[in-house]
Amino acid sequence: MPPSVSVFGAAGFTGALTARLLLRHPSFELRALTARSDQGRRLDDLYPHHRVPIELEELDLERHADVDAAVVGYPHGAAAPLVAQLRDRGVRVVDLSADFRLHDPAVYGRWYREHLAPELLPEAVYGLPERYREQIRGADLVANPGCYPTATLLALAPLAREGVIGDVIVDAKSGLSGAGRTPSEKTHFVTADENVSAYGVPRHRHIPEIEQELAALGANVRVTFVPHLVPLDQGELVTCYVTPSAEVGDLASLEALYADAYAGEPFVELTSKPPGMRDVRETNICRISVHHDERTGRLIVFAAIDNLWKGAASQAVQNLNLMFGLREEEGIGVGASRQREAIG
Amino acid sequence: MPPSVSVFGAAGFTGALTARLLLRHPSFELRALTARSDQGRRLDDLYPHHRVPIELEELDLERHADVDAAVVGYPHGAAAPLVAQLRDRGVRVVDLSADFRLHDPAVYGRWYREHLAPELLPEAVYGLPERYREQIRGADLVANPGCYPTATLLALAPLAREGVIGDVIVDAKSGLSGAGRTPSEKTHFVTADENVSAYGVPRHRHIPEIEQELAALGANVRVTFVPHLVPLDQGELVTCYVTPSAEVGDLASLEALYADAYAGEPFVELTSKPPGMRDVRETNICRISVHHDERTGRLIVFAAIDNLWKGAASQAVQNLNLMFGLREEEGIGVGASRQREAIG
Amino acid sequence: MPPSVSVFGAAGFTGALTARLLLRHPSFELRALTARSDQGRRLDDLYPHHRVPIELEELDLERHADVDAAVVGYPHGAAAPLVAQLRDRGVRVVDLSADFRLHDPAVYGRWYREHLAPELLPEAVYGLPERYREQIRGADLVANPGCYPTATLLALAPLAREGVIGDVIVDAKSGLSGAGRTPSEKTHFVTADENVSAYGVPRHRHIPEIEQELAALGANVRVTFVPHLVPLDQGELVTCYVTPSAEVGDLASLEALYADAYAGEPFVELTSKPPGMRDVRETNICRISVHHDERTGRLIVFAAIDNLWKGAASQAVQNLNLMFGLREEEGIGVGASRQREAIG
Amino acid sequence: MPPSVSVFGAAGFTGALTARLLLRHPSFELRALTARSDQGRRLDDLYPHHRVPIELEELDLERHADVDAAVVGYPHGAAAPLVAQLRDRGVRVVDLSADFRLHDPAVYGRWYREHLAPELLPEAVYGLPERYREQIRGADLVANPGCYPTATLLALAPLAREGVIGDVIVDAKSGLSGAGRTPSEKTHFVTADENVSAYGVPRHRHIPEIEQELAALGANVRVTFVPHLVPLDQGELVTCYVTPSAEVGDLASLEALYADAYAGEPFVELTSKPPGMRDVRETNICRISVHHDERTGRLIVFAAIDNLWKGAASQAVQNLNLMFGLREEEGIGVGASRQREAIG
Repeated sequence: MPPSVSVFGAAGFTGALTARLLLRHPSFELRALTARSDQGRRLDDLYPHHRVPIELEELDLERHADVDAAVVGYPHGAAAPLVAQLRDRGVRVVDLSADFRLHDPAVYGRWYREHLAPELLPEAVYGLPERYREQIRGADLVANPGCYPTATLLALAPLAREGVIGDVIVDAKSGLSGAGRTPSEKTHFVTADENVSAYGVPRHRHIPEIEQELAALGANVRVTFVPHLVPLDQGELVTCYVTPSAEVGDLASLEALYADAYAGEPFVELTSKPPGMRDVRETNICRISVHHDERTGRLIVFAAIDNLWKGAASQAVQNLNLMFGLREEEGIGVGASRQREAIG
Repeated sequence: MPPSVSVFGAAGFTGALTARLLLRHPSFELRALTARSDQGRRLDDLYPHHRVPIELEELDLERHADVDAAVVGYPHGAAAPLVAQLRDRGVRVVDLSADFRLHDPAVYGRWYREHLAPELLPEAVYGLPERYREQIRGADLVANPGCYPTATLLALAPLAREGVIGDVIVDAKSGLSGAGRTPSEKTHFVTADENVSAYGVPRHRHIPEIEQELAALGANVRVTFVPHLVPLDQGELVTCYVTPSAEVGDLASLEALYADAYAGEPFVELTSKPPGMRDVRETNICRISVHHDERTGRLIVFAAIDNLWKGAASQAVQNLNLMFGLREEEGIGVGASRQREAIG
Repeated sequence: MPPSVSVFGAAGFTGALTARLLLRHPSFELRALTARSDQGRRLDDLYPHHRVPIELEELDLERHADVDAAVVGYPHGAAAPLVAQLRDRGVRVVDLSADFRLHDPAVYGRWYREHLAPELLPEAVYGLPERYREQIRGADLVANPGCYPTATLLALAPLAREGVIGDVIVDAKSGLSGAGRTPSEKTHFVTADENVSAYGVPRHRHIPEIEQELAALGANVRVTFVPHLVPLDQGELVTCYVTPSAEVGDLASLEALYADAYAGEPFVELTSKPPGMRDVRETNICRISVHHDERTGRLIVFAAIDNLWKGAASQAVQNLNLMFGLREEEGIGVGASRQREAIG
Repeated sequence: MPPSVSVFGAAGFTGALTARLLLRHPSFELRALTARSDQGRRLDDLYPHHRVPIELEELDLERHADVDAAVVGYPHGAAAPLVAQLRDRGVRVVDLSADFRLHDPAVYGRWYREHLAPELLPEAVYGLPERYREQIRGADLVANPGCYPTATLLALAPLAREGVIGDVIVDAKSGLSGAGRTPSEKTHFVTADENVSAYGVPRHRHIPEIEQELAALGANVRVTFVPHLVPLDQGELVTCYVTPSAEVGDLASLEALYADAYAGEPFVELTSKPPGMRDVRETNICRISVHHDERTGRLIVFAAIDNLWKGAASQAVQNLNLMFGLREEEGIGVGASRQREAIG
């Protein structure tokens, strides 16, 4: 019998997409969808293109938590108490919020708010499979990474491990789905169309997450990070400017470093040309290119993902696959595994 | 001393644009802006690109109605009472709402709600200058046409006057600014982007306005009208399918009919190719082409406008120009009159 | 051993997508890709998001036609001679061009050019599975329908069969991929962005195809058809205005007519609200709603498809599935069959 | 009698917009438009929205160079010889190309090609009015800045003058009009829509121009510069990351520095929030905000312009105004001068 999963908080963009992926997953049984708004509506009424003909229900732990696993799509702060209740009942959890990404509750407190379930932090694993695959396999609580950290860390990990990151600036661009489903002046079509502007300057909340994980890789740097909204729905590109702290070799050796770091990774693609958001739309793939500016000595690394897929929902499923001993590519996107063989 | 004008309800898309046009109008003095939301904010904070450094104030008739003219940008139903108060004080009004467009309060009642100032209907002039220029000159109350009726009536008037419209279907496309400033699921970027869909089917409120004015031109028809949202901010295109009730001649004679009907019109452009929304963006111009489908005997007429300009704000200024004896082109767009001479 | 397929003309939008779908199809073996341009480039260099790591080759019938089936993605006129050669070698063909859609070579001659393989017309089956499923199963040559006819015929078939179509106007909207891959002023981003305009007025080449198939269903009408370009990449919406020639009953009976007509169809979805292009993006699904305008007596039917999928490539695979006795849903989109069961 | 101007190379995006602005300019007489393509077509056929009913002619210096001034819209390399011919005839020139922006022909040679009129370099003035206003007034040859350098230099000049720029990275975003009018795979709607990607990495040709002008301001730095295409037509945003080489004070003192630097500038706007491209669309305005990231000590400066206006055509007219002793704001955009007073 396949493991059963409920999605808690399925009315938002990422929860809804997770529900779509799980409904068609060959090895999970999607049990229930709860939501804090739109209760009683069917998900395919809110999002026809996801084709999930399941009603959104009010949370009832008795009924909804009788599952093997849960994906929690609550806002930061609201997620922690629900995750605690689910863990109390023995449910294995992938949490889409930031609540369990930062190991240090004091850091969380500075960037978000007082942590409401700090006792769970020690067991939480940071859910970036390309980095923590083995730990995820055994984990009961996985903190799904933020979309910007996902792209940034995949872009920078090979350099961080090599110990050559002296300083780094990340200029990020994201489509409007990154701003969430709640209608606002910011997400009104007429505001965003034919527009690009930065937000969250200079203290976006994804910074401590990036710094924590870079430090764990050996790069103790303070990151300058500036995200921009661009007029499209799904897609994210990070442009990372690295000032190396040591000799990095020529372009060929840099490309070899990346090829080596990501050999066998089913969802990382390396290219020589700067990747575009279109290249990864509606996939779990992160597409990366590395460049060397010989005039300035700087390295430039691009990473493109779909913020709703690899940046959230399909990465959550990738994590579930690992937690339940399934093939990592199962149920994520169209033919990812076959693609790998073909390209590989 | 130039006539003074206040804009009541300047926080919405059309009121704000009217304020921008009046601020830079050589022959009006923009006196005050009121709003029902965002009071205390400056308009250039809400809409930087309009560059109107004036604060939105709470309505205070004592202060704000001591003007020669008013443009009212209130929602349908809310406009009528304010217009009545302004008229009581002798202020000449251009009303952007639907409240004074329909002559018959019973018709208004069926499509909107009970009319709150029916006593003013007899003095209201329908503010389509290409049709009622002389009446507008002497008017104290001008009902600015809806955006769809503006484009549709300019497209069809020559045929209506000729008495050849047997039947007509209007398929309309509008950018998202037509849906207004209030954030909603419908106007969320992620809903509208990469999407086209119809709304208000089959009874959009602009239908009685179109039928009333076609009837006044001699075409007593029931109009099938279906609007669609398209993913852009400003722009409107109506595609009118006319089944002629009489012989209409060949394409050349049709084009001559239109050329004759609009000779000397400063804001109507005729083309042989179907017009695009881009052609008229941020102008008061309506661009029209007429086509003859010999296989079916049907006539196809396109009209493109900017829904916020000719479909609302700049047409309001055009009406104000007429009401105050100014040159019709004054203050509307870049060099409209010079353009006419050059092309003419 | 799975049937082998080559795609001839795989550099264009529809050929390339067909290649992507076939590469991941569980029951076909994609053998080779040929192209008339870009020979020597890999398809994933032209279209990274399709992830087809196969080189485009110059046509060599000896090598490339040694297959069970072929999909031909050549332009109108150029397709017929190649199809004839493939058929000579016994290859079963799905042709994406218009060359075998019209039964009468004289009609083809009037709308396109002299037909170059009229001898094959008798064996060609019009590849709209919802209409000709049984004939497609046994066919050796399937003419894949045009994108506009696909949506239009699915929208109108139930009414045509009922004999109630007195007259019909089709106002169509399509994304830019419908204009093909060749760069031109028309497809330049700066031309198409923030723009909507009609083209092909009043004689678009999809008209005879629509009329032929409506006639076969019993509706002998001359169709007025006007397509418009809208600023998005993939998606198509047809708005059909039908003047009924007989009593059609109320909305409930109309909806029942459609539900009955499409019961069990895996790729037709019925809704009560007007469908949007987003609802069917990257799927083989046609989403339809029918409306009754009681004021005018007219019926309004909307149908949305993805012009590259159901309007071309995925419908070609649907046809191949039928031709080779496979399950109709195999290899087309994400979980179409499961979706059907779920929605019921 | 107003000075006469011809535009040479008026078929491209920037030449055409210059023609539009000059046709409606109150103090210039637009004499003729030449083009290297589309000869014989009227400009309002190519660009209806510019409403310039003038035919594009083949270059004939006898006729077209009998003017007081010329704007040259030729490609890099092709401009220099024409400019030389015009200068020989005593015509005062604003050149939109890069040919006279770099003072050192050797540097030009490294980034472009061999310079074809190096003898004119000494007399050429770099046409950034906010920097070289006085020199432009007396100039006979003005090199209109590149779009990226315009935004970047306006963003960085106050810091450069202060001597605090230790290092700088510029991440730039531009709409598709920046890629020029020639249709290509890159500018095809389907390539650019729902996409963002970098180009010209790591050696974009605007780098030497930025470095030359920063050096002239006292900042001898090697600039890392990476431009990205974003899916919109007109607009440009540069995000400048400055590592200060000296103490810069707090945010208030930074903002005071900028306020002081741009006091009285008619076309520079300062804001506290990051500017958006929409804020400056179709204007000659550069909108700037400066931020201090206290965590990293870095300064972040944003500057938004319209790449076709302040980044090219309207800045050319601003330069012409200065050269001919006119009011700097004349004929550029809607009411720039009045706006200044109002905001003042």
